[in-house]
Amino acid sequence: MKELFLIGIGSGNPEHLTLQAVRAMNGVDAILIPRKGAGKADLADLRRAICADVVTNTLVRLVEFDLPERDEATPDYLQRVEDWHNAIAQTWEAALLGAGSPGRVALLVWGDPSLYDSTLRIAARLAPAPRVTVIAGITSLQALTAAHRIPVNGLGAAFTVTTGRNLRDAGWPVGVNRIAVMLDGDCSFAQIAPEGVTIYWAAYAGMAQEVAMSGDLAIMAPQIIAKRAELRAAHGWIMDIYILDRV
Amino acid sequence: MKELFLIGIGSGNPEHLTLQAVRAMNGVDAILIPRKGAGKADLADLRRAICADVVTNTLVRLVEFDLPERDEATPDYLQRVEDWHNAIAQTWEAALLGAGSPGRVALLVWGDPSLYDSTLRIAARLAPAPRVTVIAGITSLQALTAAHRIPVNGLGAAFTVTTGRNLRDAGWPVGVNRIAVMLDGDCSFAQIAPEGVTIYWAAYAGMAQEVAMSGDLAIMAPQIIAKRAELRAAHGWIMDIYILDRV
Ligand SMILES: C[S@@+](CC[C@H](N)C(=O)[O-])C[C@H]1O[C@@H](n2cnc3c(N)ncnc32)[C@H](O)[C@@H]1O
Ligand SMILES: C[S@@+](CC[C@H](N)C(=O)[O-])C[C@H]1O[C@@H](n2cnc3c(N)ncnc32)[C@H](O)[C@@H]1O
Repeated sequence: MKELFLIGIGSGNPEHLTLQAVRAMNGVDAILIPRKGAGKADLADLRRAICADVVTNTLVRLVEFDLPERDEATPDYLQRVEDWHNAIAQTWEAALLGAGSPGRVALLVWGDPSLYDSTLRIAARLAPAPRVTVIAGITSLQALTAAHRIPVNGLGAAFTVTTGRNLRDAGWPVGVNRIAVMLDGDCSFAQIAPEGVTIYWAAYAGMAQEVAMSGDLAIMAPQIIAKRAELRAAHGWIMDIYILDRV
Repeated sequence: MKELFLIGIGSGNPEHLTLQAVRAMNGVDAILIPRKGAGKADLADLRRAICADVVTNTLVRLVEFDLPERDEATPDYLQRVEDWHNAIAQTWEAALLGAGSPGRVALLVWGDPSLYDSTLRIAARLAPAPRVTVIAGITSLQALTAAHRIPVNGLGAAFTVTTGRNLRDAGWPVGVNRIAVMLDGDCSFAQIAPEGVTIYWAAYAGMAQEVAMSGDLAIMAPQIIAKRAELRAAHGWIMDIYILDRV
C-alpha cells in the first residue's frame, strides 16, 4: 500500500458525501469495506450502497474484510484496544494481499475521521507507512445540529464535546454551558441535575430513520429513555447523540 | 419567503460541497449571495464560482446583496450585534423583494451553519418565519484536522472548542487536555504557558493557499506569528485555526 485515503462518508445519509470524497473514491485502486461497522449495526450495506451510487470508475475494486473482535479476556483496557488496533491493521494488509496488493487504497470512515474514530490510529501501525490523506466528512454532531436547526455554541462561547462515559465519571465539564455527548449507550443525561438544562437529542441523525426530540431535560429524560428503548428494539440497533444546554 | 435553506459550503475548498448541498442549491428559486463574506476577505467570488460550478438548474437566480456594517457607535456589544442581525435580516428581505419575492431561498454559509455563525440567529428574526432547513457543511476545524491527519479528541477524551477571546480572557479551559481555537485575530496561543503543549495550526485550511504548521508550542509560537503576518500581508486577508494539545 503506497497511499491510503481515509474518507469521511458522513453519518448515514449517502448525500452527506462531499464532491472531494466522490472524486477520491473514483481515484483509488481499491476500497476496503469492513463487514462490521460502527456500533452494533452492520453498516457494510450502507457502504456498499454508497459505492454502487458514486463509484463510476470500473477499475476500482471493492475489497471486503471481517473486522476482528476485541479480545475481552485482556484485562487492561488500553492493552485490549492496542491489540485490537494491531489486529485490524493486519486484517487490512491480509485483505489487500488477497486482492493483488493495490497501491492506492481507500477506507470509508463513518462521519469524519477526526472524531472519536480509531482509523487514523490504526493506520499509524502500517509498516511501511503509506502516505495518508484525510478527507473530511459530515459528523453526527453536525447531523444533530442540522436536525434541530441550532448552533453548537452559545454566542461567542466555548463548548465541550465528550462521551457518555466521561459525563458519568466526571460530571458536567467545568466552565462551559453547552456540551455535546457522543458514544453514550447508557443515557447518561439522566445522571445530571436537570434544573435549567435543555436537551437536544437525535437518533439516526441524518438518516431516513432520524428521530429528534428536544426540551427541558427534566421532562424529556424519561421520554427519551423510553423512545430510545423502543427504537432500539424496532431497528435492532441505535446510534444517538445529544447536546445539553445550561442557562 | 416560504422556505429558507441554510447550506454549509465547507471552508473554502469547492469540493467540500456535499451532494445534499448541490441538490438543495439546484432546488431553490434563488440563492442569496452576500458581497462581503467571512473575515476580512471578500468571499463573494468563491460563492459565485461554487454556484457556477454546481448550479445546473437555469431557473435558479443568484441574488446579490451588500452586507450592512456593524454600527461601532453602539456602546453595548450585545445590542450592537442585535442591531446588526436585524439589519442583515432586513437586507435579505429587501434583496428578495427586488428579485420578485422568490418562495424557496438558499443562503450559502461558510463551513457549517452550526459553528460560530450567526445565520441561524438572523433567520430567526424573519417574520413571517419561513420553514428553515439546515444542510451541514465541512467546518474549518475538520479542514484543520484533515490537513494534519490528526484526531480532534484524545482517545476517549473530551475536548473544548473555543475562541481566541475566551482563551485570552479565561485561560486554558478546565478539565480538558485538547482545545480547538477559532476566531483568533491575536495569536492568543502565545499567551499561555507553553510547557508540554503541542500546537497544530493551519491558515486557509482546505484551500489552495493552505499552510499547516505543528510542533512544540514554545518553538512554534514565534514562527507561526511571523508566518501569519507574512501570509496576511501577501494575501490581504487570513483565516486561521488551531488545536492545542497538552500532555
Ligand atoms: C465511534 S463514534 C464515531 C463518530 C463519527 N466519526 C462522527 O464523525 O460522527 C460513534 C458515535 O457517534 C454517534 N453517531 C454516529 N452516527 C450517528 C447518527 N447517525 N446519529 C446519531 N449519533 C450518531 C453516536 O454517539 C455514536 O455512539
Ligand atoms: C465566523 S467563524 C465561521 C466558522 C465556520 N462556520 C466553520 O464551520 O468553520 C470564522 C472562523 O473560522 C475559522 N476559519 C474559517 N475558515 C477557515 C479556513 N479555511 N482556514 C482556517 N480557519 C478558518 C477561523 O478561525 C475564523 O476566524
